[in-house]
Amino acid sequence: MLEEMMKFIKEVDKLKTIERRTYVSDGSRRENSGEHSWHVCVMAMTLFEVFERKNETDLFTSIQMLLLHDIVEIDAGDTYAFDVNGYEDKHEREVRAAERIFGLLPEGARTKYRSLWEEFEEGKTNEALYASIIDHIQPLLLNISTEGKSWMEHNIYAHQVLNRNEWIKAASPTIYSQINEWVGMGIEKGWLLKE
Amino acid sequence: MLEEMMKFIKEVDKLKTIERRTYVSDGSRRENSGEHSWHVCVMAMTLFEVFERKNETDLFTSIQMLLLHDIVEIDAGDTYAFDVNGYEDKHEREVRAAERIFGLLPEGARTKYRSLWEEFEEGKTNEALYASIIDHIQPLLLNISTEGKSWMEHNIYAHQVLNRNEWIKAASPTIYSQINEWVGMGIEKGWLLKE
Repeated sequence: MLEEMMKFIKEVDKLKTIERRTYVSDGSRRENSGEHSWHVCVMAMTLFEVFERKNETDLFTSIQMLLLHDIVEIDAGDTYAFDVNGYEDKHEREVRAAERIFGLLPEGARTKYRSLWEEFEEGKTNEALYASIIDHIQPLLLNISTEGKSWMEHNIYAHQVLNRNEWIKAASPTIYSQINEWVGMGIEKGWLLKE
Repeated sequence: MLEEMMKFIKEVDKLKTIERRTYVSDGSRRENSGEHSWHVCVMAMTLFEVFERKNETDLFTSIQMLLLHDIVEIDAGDTYAFDVNGYEDKHEREVRAAERIFGLLPEGARTKYRSLWEEFEEGKTNEALYASIIDHIQPLLLNISTEGKSWMEHNIYAHQVLNRNEWIKAASPTIYSQINEWVGMGIEKGWLLKE
């Protein structure tokens, strides 16, 4: 059992080599999906206090989802938030990846991790919803910290950011208010395009 | 409150720029403390099943400790496991760092994070003990994965690795057996020096 666990732990180390489109906060280089996964977990821990549904949400479950949510990228690659073509076969690629990578684990963990990942992907439970809110706002924070570096590189419009995050308005008005403020700042500073 | 939280979340992003001595598993570059923190959390989740004291240990507490345990390095830097001089004032430097960085948070989180960090540093509770075991064995796994790259760069002796991890024998014989196996392999392959 220990041997299978170690194989999995060694394999997932590769997540540290998957590059995202966002930059770390000093703008010096792109963020990788390993450190991103850590950052969203700290963010989830910290913002939980302001999450309106905190009493009906198990934070540990959300955090476990966030620890695992990007592991499929080891095979499937990171799909940029605003890449329409990339999203076409994203799910299919990721399911194959989940099959292989979680398949390295002993049975108990394999089933548990796979089901945490699927719950996150479906986004229906409070835990998945909260994890997904955090996963959506973390790159916005990094864009604000780097004066819109990744937004400007990809000519992103304010409405694209708003559309992508619109659903958060109902799930957490408090967190959505932060998004709104950031998008306003992005427009004002010229980091986001306006139609 | 949201503003203070975001300041903290932005500040801790810097952990992604703190370089450790170990290499990521393909040996291409050194690991940073942000991605390391993610990796140890996945490792803690995965190995918990074989931890002998699992029924008396709250895994979520251990994971929260691991998410936060290296944040002080943003000010204090990473101290290499076998750096005797660096250890002399390590604690003092880290306490100052904890003061400043956790001090960015609203009061509730500030107290909670500070106390989780102190509990981890003291290493007395089962949660801290487990978190610390994981933090100790993760670099061993990376050394094995990279054919002893970091061990060889620093001319590390097998007895140094054994001495540093000896306490794990009592805390988790199962995990210790893995360390023993790795050290044996390190000697056999010439990745660790023998006296």
